Amino acid sequence: MTGQERSEEKSECVSLSPMREAVPAPPECERVCVCGTGDLGRSLGLRLLQAGYGVVFGSRRPHSSSSLIPHGAQVLGHAAAAQSAHLIFIAVQREHYDFLVPLANQLKGKVLVDLSNNLRKNQYPEANAEYLQSLVPGAEVVKGFNTLSAWSLQNGPSDANRQVYICGESVEAKQAVMAVATKLGFSALDRGFLSVARELEDFPLQLFPQWRLPLYIATGLSAAFFFYLLIRDIIYAYVTQGKDISFRIIVSLANKVCPIVSLIMLSLCYLPGVLASFLQLYRGTKYRRFPDWLDRWMLCRKQLGLLALGFAFLHVLYTLIIPIRYYGRFKATEHTVSVIRENRTTEFDTTTAWRGDSYLSLGILGFSLYVLLGITSLPSVSNVLSWREFSFIQSKLGHLTLLLCTAHTYLYGWNKFLSSSTYKWYTPLGYMLCLVLPSVVLLLKLLLITPYTHTHRHTQNNTLSVMTALSSRHELLFLCYYTLKGWLTFNHRLQCFWDLKKTAITFN
Amino acid sequence: MTGQERSEEKSECVSLSPMREAVPAPPECERVCVCGTGDLGRSLGLRLLQAGYGVVFGSRRPHSSSSLIPHGAQVLGHAAAAQSAHLIFIAVQREHYDFLVPLANQLKGKVLVDLSNNLRKNQYPEANAEYLQSLVPGAEVVKGFNTLSAWSLQNGPSDANRQVYICGESVEAKQAVMAVATKLGFSALDRGFLSVARELEDFPLQLFPQWRLPLYIATGLSAAFFFYLLIRDIIYAYVTQGKDISFRIIVSLANKVCPIVSLIMLSLCYLPGVLASFLQLYRGTKYRRFPDWLDRWMLCRKQLGLLALGFAFLHVLYTLIIPIRYYGRFKATEHTVSVIRENRTTEFDTTTAWRGDSYLSLGILGFSLYVLLGITSLPSVSNVLSWREFSFIQSKLGHLTLLLCTAHTYLYGWNKFLSSSTYKWYTPLGYMLCLVLPSVVLLLKLLLITPYTHTHRHTQNNTLSVMTALSSRHELLFLCYYTLKGWLTFNHRLQCFWDLKKTAITFN
Amino acid sequence: MTGQERSEEKSECVSLSPMREAVPAPPECERVCVCGTGDLGRSLGLRLLQAGYGVVFGSRRPHSSSSLIPHGAQVLGHAAAAQSAHLIFIAVQREHYDFLVPLANQLKGKVLVDLSNNLRKNQYPEANAEYLQSLVPGAEVVKGFNTLSAWSLQNGPSDANRQVYICGESVEAKQAVMAVATKLGFSALDRGFLSVARELEDFPLQLFPQWRLPLYIATGLSAAFFFYLLIRDIIYAYVTQGKDISFRIIVSLANKVCPIVSLIMLSLCYLPGVLASFLQLYRGTKYRRFPDWLDRWMLCRKQLGLLALGFAFLHVLYTLIIPIRYYGRFKATEHTVSVIRENRTTEFDTTTAWRGDSYLSLGILGFSLYVLLGITSLPSVSNVLSWREFSFIQSKLGHLTLLLCTAHTYLYGWNKFLSSSTYKWYTPLGYMLCLVLPSVVLLLKLLLITPYTHTHRHTQNNTLSVMTALSSRHELLFLCYYTLKGWLTFNHRLQCFWDLKKTAITFN
Repeated sequence: MTGQERSEEKSECVSLSPMREAVPAPPECERVCVCGTGDLGRSLGLRLLQAGYGVVFGSRRPHSSSSLIPHGAQVLGHAAAAQSAHLIFIAVQREHYDFLVPLANQLKGKVLVDLSNNLRKNQYPEANAEYLQSLVPGAEVVKGFNTLSAWSLQNGPSDANRQVYICGESVEAKQAVMAVATKLGFSALDRGFLSVARELEDFPLQLFPQWRLPLYIATGLSAAFFFYLLIRDIIYAYVTQGKDISFRIIVSLANKVCPIVSLIMLSLCYLPGVLASFLQLYRGTKYRRFPDWLDRWMLCRKQLGLLALGFAFLHVLYTLIIPIRYYGRFKATEHTVSVIRENRTTEFDTTTAWRGDSYLSLGILGFSLYVLLGITSLPSVSNVLSWREFSFIQSKLGHLTLLLCTAHTYLYGWNKFLSSSTYKWYTPLGYMLCLVLPSVVLLLKLLLITPYTHTHRHTQNNTLSVMTALSSRHELLFLCYYTLKGWLTFNHRLQCFWDLKKTAITFN
Repeated sequence: MTGQERSEEKSECVSLSPMREAVPAPPECERVCVCGTGDLGRSLGLRLLQAGYGVVFGSRRPHSSSSLIPHGAQVLGHAAAAQSAHLIFIAVQREHYDFLVPLANQLKGKVLVDLSNNLRKNQYPEANAEYLQSLVPGAEVVKGFNTLSAWSLQNGPSDANRQVYICGESVEAKQAVMAVATKLGFSALDRGFLSVARELEDFPLQLFPQWRLPLYIATGLSAAFFFYLLIRDIIYAYVTQGKDISFRIIVSLANKVCPIVSLIMLSLCYLPGVLASFLQLYRGTKYRRFPDWLDRWMLCRKQLGLLALGFAFLHVLYTLIIPIRYYGRFKATEHTVSVIRENRTTEFDTTTAWRGDSYLSLGILGFSLYVLLGITSLPSVSNVLSWREFSFIQSKLGHLTLLLCTAHTYLYGWNKFLSSSTYKWYTPLGYMLCLVLPSVVLLLKLLLITPYTHTHRHTQNNTLSVMTALSSRHELLFLCYYTLKGWLTFNHRLQCFWDLKKTAITFN
Repeated sequence: MTGQERSEEKSECVSLSPMREAVPAPPECERVCVCGTGDLGRSLGLRLLQAGYGVVFGSRRPHSSSSLIPHGAQVLGHAAAAQSAHLIFIAVQREHYDFLVPLANQLKGKVLVDLSNNLRKNQYPEANAEYLQSLVPGAEVVKGFNTLSAWSLQNGPSDANRQVYICGESVEAKQAVMAVATKLGFSALDRGFLSVARELEDFPLQLFPQWRLPLYIATGLSAAFFFYLLIRDIIYAYVTQGKDISFRIIVSLANKVCPIVSLIMLSLCYLPGVLASFLQLYRGTKYRRFPDWLDRWMLCRKQLGLLALGFAFLHVLYTLIIPIRYYGRFKATEHTVSVIRENRTTEFDTTTAWRGDSYLSLGILGFSLYVLLGITSLPSVSNVLSWREFSFIQSKLGHLTLLLCTAHTYLYGWNKFLSSSTYKWYTPLGYMLCLVLPSVVLLLKLLLITPYTHTHRHTQNNTLSVMTALSSRHELLFLCYYTLKGWLTFNHRLQCFWDLKKTAITFN
């Protein structure tokens, strides 16, 4: 507070209590106290007044602070204010909590709502709310409202500011705070004991923690493929033929990097599920936790998939502008001119037409399913889906999307795989590299689903998914696989494995 | 449980109660019991522990089961476990419920939460929860948590696993269960009495029940038009001219089927509303229920519309790739070459330009509105709309979309309707067929809205929408219609009809 | 009620109470009363019966009304019905409320739920619920359920009909009503005291109030630029060269208006934030409220942005169909033919390729970010974001989008700015005009962020963002600005300003 600075404004603002008597609050109006007349305190006070509460502000200097206090509120000293209400919002910073120590007696049994936040994670050894509780052990400390901005406290709930998280030891205290939150128009969620306070205090500081790893992967992959293709396409042409085709960086190169990264990230999205299944097969049980890296990977699959969708979206746009580009139009004209000048006949090649149309069609269908996957991962859509429906879309349709996009890329490549002229400087084309991972994922998935579909996953022993009867065909398939990998114990373990991720609910 | 198999691990796991004493739970920590140490029981137990509950597992063989029980929980025999807590989660399968019969005395007045699911619908004559209640009549059975996967019970709420549905006879018991659900981070919803249990047990088994009919319609229409166009376009060309243009199946044919199906499904989406209005007109009242088929049709309008949007999306993509296709590029080159070789002059035809641009423009506007309709049917968007706003978008803008798309198709056809050469094998073009339904819907809608707009729908008698004064123009319009249909009683009934769907709230 | 008309049906419907005895409700079944047998009353009654309540209808003429009452309900006179239940739904129109006056004694202490709506805003001096309370002062009046349509009351919650808003003076009464709402499947929200009733009664009448201003702006801008470009492009060509290029109105002109309006609206979306910051700088404090016009502007930023996205979407579609248009294909052919006939050589211009590709690429990236902004403003997405994340996307990425789109437009213009031939009739090109506003916004934003980034926003005095140490570079920048504007006091005030919008939570 720059109270000193604005002392010239003090004269125009006496204590507002007489005014308040003029407009008396309804008789049943509940009184709450807000300690602290800073930005947060005032915003909260204003909102409380609007919701029909009587508000008493607690201030170190009640006379100088009253100047900018919302109309209709009272300003008292901290002690007097604390005595006037059962519910007290602590809107001062942690460093100033010590003013509460002498008030410990008045605060006994009262509900203190800690609204404070820190400037960075792990600033203090314990959470602010726990520190507050240790200072005033007789009071019921509740952490809450700290995830809101002052702006939204003043103007009411809006987009990212609708949910209020609450934690504390006393159920009654939390109920009281949640009632206030509801009355202010927020939806309150009880998150548990006061030990959760640290988590709540870290929440406003977080910046897409789940998106970090996927974003690093996307950036790394984009950079790697960008430089790989820059060397292969642009620099190679310059070195060997002296041609400057650097303008192709902007669109042509981007339109190669985008689909490559998109396809790799889509397969990275389905690889952990397949790996987890094989790990369970290998271990013969699903009751052991996955390694940490696999767990973390599985938890960011949604983000991986959405980033992959973003790259696919860019690929679609970059592809659709091809005929609008100067380069595209130039090439078309040049081709026609050369046909005329060299007096060639134009012969329609049905194979090229089939191949081109198939590859475009697969791309369109793949992208449409991609978009469908994206839509169903919107929180409001996935909320209305049953677990079985969600898993049908994300797993079945997801793998179908991967299959379509992989086929789209294979068809795009066509027979270039075989021609030696495509291996400039002995390096393969970019999309050949990007095909490795999705092919592996699809192959592993194929191995996994073949026996499943034909054996009765729910046997009479209530141990679901025990595959006791593998058809000879699958044994052969698996045998080949074992021989390749040398995992001979695998076969025996296969008799009794469960698939945690696939079975909704299982019993002992 | 494969207790025998993992007996070698038993030695490392004694009863965990001593450990628990070492880390005592907070004094006010509530105790709950989980009967069943299967996958579901353990996942639930782990989550309960994390939320600050004391957890006691009930098991048939407490010593062998304790091996994989989450850290911090106690394992006892079923009877001892049931006695130790007020709230008991039954995480065993229905077939094993009989172990509860001898415990009937201990369970008197306790809350039993039935978590079980079945493997298919109608597996048993009564719901599992009702069966449980009949076994232990003294206990308060609550059905709940069964819609969650074991995965989400362990890892907390996520996408499709945030909502917990609860039902049961006792309000207090349900309140207690809902409090636990909230503490675990789920949002609980009371669905009513125990008779709803069957519905809750069927929920996890459902797979898009509302999407079935629309999907069947979409598949049927696509198949029908695919074969119709295959015969008309590809086979006709092969039979009469011996040309193999089969490559056109992939893109050209798909790009005809998609818009046709999209337009038909969009009109199917608005047809039931129009039919319902005419039925009410015919009946002279809106207080009789619609026939079942109409009711079912009206309930899947949203799904019909979203599928239509999907087909429109495919149509847009298929159209935009036309200039990228080999066929498109070949045609362009061929055209230019022929202009040069035959020394023709290129004359710009303003009419063609007007027509082409109009038809593209109508398509763009129609598709944009289509997308807008799709966005507003997202649950989170439609939740924030008032009823009037939602109906404005879905009805007014919906019919405008249908009008734009129909006009787009008519302009695409232009004068081909009149030329006899388009009627190969005496069959009309595909898009001519698809124009029938939308034209009918738009015509009927026009009949419905014309009198509405000009008569005062809210008369002084509080009987809304009574059309007492039809202008002569509308009477004429209606008269033509009656004469055509022979519905002569219709005219008389028209005097006093209400439109259920259009009036938000009406009074007696 | 058309009771007279349907008197012939009366004979088949006696009072349904005997039937009800045949199928007795469960013993704990709660009884509620619904006064009014109109459409709303019956729909509500049916839904209540389905949820397990016992329903008693109150009617002026119990015998004639019983005909269409839902199966299982009782019909009594108003007085008898009101006596039979604690919770009474008033489903009659405000004009008929006087029937309640003689019942004042029976209604003492009962909960009356006012469901009524009006036909237009401000129809009556006070809210219906307040009027009801004044008629029956002894009862506890609760406003609620009025935002639902009769349709959704009958068929249960759906898209725009899930939320029920409640207000009233008595907490217990509201709790009782909210319990019923929850049981019917709705989610109830307590909005406060009965004084909110007017707001709730206006809610169903509202039609996108927040969208009006943005829609007016969009319409105004579109019309202005349409006529400006019509004159400059079409009419100019007709007047000076006698050419009729009116066909270009449909696509070419639309594709100029859309991006222009989109870019202007996007900058209008970010201009108020910048203005607010400068206002705070000028005032030297953030504790004074913004002028009303600025406040209203800031509250419709989301709508401005979404409309801008809509126009950008149209621009993308209009651009992508260019090569499909007859005009586009004609131009391409004409160009090739002229190259051949005039025997020109086709020379590839790298600069044009660079420029064209850059401008397309910037447009694609800008549009992708645009779409991202649109997705994050979906309610369900913004709900799961922390305040910091939401502000990162909407502010940082938002300004980046504006930057990309502005750069896209500048590159599109390229050197046309300098050529005098583009200034037909001395008017600048459309996109030159549209560049003014975004350039100003970006420049102002640049001024705002430069000092921020380099000074420690969180100083030791807990007064956040006090910029005490401006580097000399920024002082220079600011000095230039001051000199230009003559705001010399500005510099001094800069020492102690806070930025309300940027700091999540600040303290005194």
